[in-house]
Amino acid sequence: MSAEKIQENLTGKQQKEPTGPPYASNEDSREERVEIPVYIQTLLHQARAASRTLGSMTTSVKNDALMAMADGLEAASETLIEENAKDLDAFDTGNGQAAMADRLTLTSERIRAMADGIRDIAKLRDPVGQSSGMWERPNGLWVGRVRVPIGVIGIIYESRPNVTADAAALCLKSGNVCVLRGGSEAIHSNRAIARVISETVHKAGIPEGAISMVERPEREAVVELLKQDRFIDLIIPRGGPSLMKTVNTYSTIPVIKHDHGVCHTYIDADADLDMAEAVSVNAKIQRPSTCNAMETLLVHQAVARNFLPRLGNRLIGAHVEIRGCAKTRHHIPDACVATEEDYGREFLALILAVKVVKDMDEAMDHIHRYGSRHTEVIVTRDYGRAMRFLRDVDASAVMINASSRLNDGYQFGLGAEIGISTTPIHARGPMGLEDLTCSKYVVYGSGQIRE
Amino acid sequence: MSAEKIQENLTGKQQKEPTGPPYASNEDSREERVEIPVYIQTLLHQARAASRTLGSMTTSVKNDALMAMADGLEAASETLIEENAKDLDAFDTGNGQAAMADRLTLTSERIRAMADGIRDIAKLRDPVGQSSGMWERPNGLWVGRVRVPIGVIGIIYESRPNVTADAAALCLKSGNVCVLRGGSEAIHSNRAIARVISETVHKAGIPEGAISMVERPEREAVVELLKQDRFIDLIIPRGGPSLMKTVNTYSTIPVIKHDHGVCHTYIDADADLDMAEAVSVNAKIQRPSTCNAMETLLVHQAVARNFLPRLGNRLIGAHVEIRGCAKTRHHIPDACVATEEDYGREFLALILAVKVVKDMDEAMDHIHRYGSRHTEVIVTRDYGRAMRFLRDVDASAVMINASSRLNDGYQFGLGAEIGISTTPIHARGPMGLEDLTCSKYVVYGSGQIRE
Repeated sequence: MSAEKIQENLTGKQQKEPTGPPYASNEDSREERVEIPVYIQTLLHQARAASRTLGSMTTSVKNDALMAMADGLEAASETLIEENAKDLDAFDTGNGQAAMADRLTLTSERIRAMADGIRDIAKLRDPVGQSSGMWERPNGLWVGRVRVPIGVIGIIYESRPNVTADAAALCLKSGNVCVLRGGSEAIHSNRAIARVISETVHKAGIPEGAISMVERPEREAVVELLKQDRFIDLIIPRGGPSLMKTVNTYSTIPVIKHDHGVCHTYIDADADLDMAEAVSVNAKIQRPSTCNAMETLLVHQAVARNFLPRLGNRLIGAHVEIRGCAKTRHHIPDACVATEEDYGREFLALILAVKVVKDMDEAMDHIHRYGSRHTEVIVTRDYGRAMRFLRDVDASAVMINASSRLNDGYQFGLGAEIGISTTPIHARGPMGLEDLTCSKYVVYGSGQIRE
Repeated sequence: MSAEKIQENLTGKQQKEPTGPPYASNEDSREERVEIPVYIQTLLHQARAASRTLGSMTTSVKNDALMAMADGLEAASETLIEENAKDLDAFDTGNGQAAMADRLTLTSERIRAMADGIRDIAKLRDPVGQSSGMWERPNGLWVGRVRVPIGVIGIIYESRPNVTADAAALCLKSGNVCVLRGGSEAIHSNRAIARVISETVHKAGIPEGAISMVERPEREAVVELLKQDRFIDLIIPRGGPSLMKTVNTYSTIPVIKHDHGVCHTYIDADADLDMAEAVSVNAKIQRPSTCNAMETLLVHQAVARNFLPRLGNRLIGAHVEIRGCAKTRHHIPDACVATEEDYGREFLALILAVKVVKDMDEAMDHIHRYGSRHTEVIVTRDYGRAMRFLRDVDASAVMINASSRLNDGYQFGLGAEIGISTTPIHARGPMGLEDLTCSKYVVYGSGQIRE
């Protein structure tokens, strides 16, 4: 990797006047580098200090900084694309990795979209200072609850470099310092984006360190980060099973996981079959690589004969591989055999497990056993069963007659989201600005004491 | 009610007909015991299964079970006191442990108070099913957010046996299964209470396992419990630094800590000194062993001369040991020298650190550096400084002109609480019934798909 070039590209003169924290810069040889724990501590000291100032900055200062951030990204477009090319060069596009390479690619359109996304976040309501109520106690004490920033949030993610800008903007708007750690496959892109945005917001009056990035590529840096409960208040991991395992094993910091989605759609005996077809097809093929795409379809036996052949035609025509139970294969002869492992599996691809069930209870048992409490859908015209499904199924979102792909911050009207939480505390489902805050009790007294 | 039967079970016939889960009972010799991992897994399988049923039980079924629980405890009073005597016999009351022994003691009055506490919980509003709003999207989709139980909650606590009943009642009311693990010093009391309440609620229609207790005394059982993220959704630890360290080190489950409180009271230059005295004395002496008691007093230099001598007299008269800075000792000659370790320390006793500060900024810097973000108080008549303190100090509760001892679920009007959370996500401050739930999105569609 050629660190000199990054800095030349970014600022030209940066080599003489480094703007980053006072640890060894990228120009140093490995031997001269500081130890990982020292590097992380130095970074986090600055982040923690920034958190105290950032938390009480006004909305207009934060919004101006966001607009500057967006402009800065667009202005640096050429440099960002050059840095991105280094990541793409190093990326192995063979062996079915073309889709991954596409996600990794930055173009001027994508950079513009990233900037527009940040401008949209500037327009959202600032959650900090919002109150969920205030009340008077019998002794005259006024007690209220207001939303405040969480503090310092560590975000560990993989692949798409736009997450760097999105996450930084959401954290800034909600008054949180972010400590970003992207995947090694996008290291040049992430580093370039982080440098542009942290520099532009600093010029707009945001304290240094408010947007921090762990630039050291070693895995040890992640492990070290996960132990810093004195400095970091929350870890948000976004990625695959290996990342989740590392976080689970090492983190002493609270974690809100954006984990896998094993989402089911249950077609009830009373379903409108046209609607069932539209919803199922959309949930599977509109974007199969996402956590809210359908992975298993459950079909009531009473409609299997009418529904499965037409659905099978549509899906096979869209290049979906169907893996079904014996009854499914009876109605869709081209389907393969579903093994036990196919149920509960997150394919993230054009593959669908299908099972014919006796009734809704069997469907709900299946969901309880194999689901990941992410998004669960029923298609039915029956009021009672719709309500029972809604009540008895536990997931971040339970839906009646709609595609699971709609479990999303924009679709729900929350605006931008940092991901979809599958952790059963704090926030479940699309995690928008409000969920990036926590509460503080404010108490207005006139000398009250405890009797 | 079948109180006699409970007593029989507890006292005599238990050895032949164990009422607990199907693992080796306590009378077995060590050799016959099942391995800890097997024991924990068996317990948690039942707990997880109970969780699915309990989550959708109606409020009236849950309330009836709570009333039965309260009656059952009162009826078993004699047995509970007998079992408690075994714990007290084993407890070393020497060496200043008398206060601990008192907290451990069960009397018929305390059992009645415990039962009344449960009846109060029955009267509180059920948080499950409450909605924080519903809205329509441009495509006609209705999106709402409702409160649902968290699932299975592991509660690890020390000392006071009444926590067993309180925690079980709060979890039951909020639709959560609890897995309780009390301290070894109260093992007979906790076991007896848990058996009475789990049996009575089971007879009232609550699924078996909804109130589970880890009866095995080995520390390994706690470590094993903390790894069961497949079965447990949340861990709530209540106890000292050693317990917190174990939880931090081993838990792969989200944790809401009820950790130490290093609470400050800042007496501003513009304080009403009568009020300042009343609030300070109350915060220190009303119950010094609690997490919301004051540990450090910060006094503006402008009022030190008028305030400290009178406060010193009051506190020393109440047997409080004062450890002060040089200026403090000038005004309170009987005060000892405060060392660096005395600031930021949770004494949990009649000891108070005192420091004279130049201004409010120095007070807030001190709080930022030494506080534990629990409860922070300002006493002042100045509106601007009151508002600034409220905004800029980060803690679970920030108070103006009131005793820190008021940071409490009952005092805030939330009803019973499971503790005071110091974790900066999910819930901070008194954690009542609502904070024992999480949210689920419910979506009412009419065939919507994602474009």
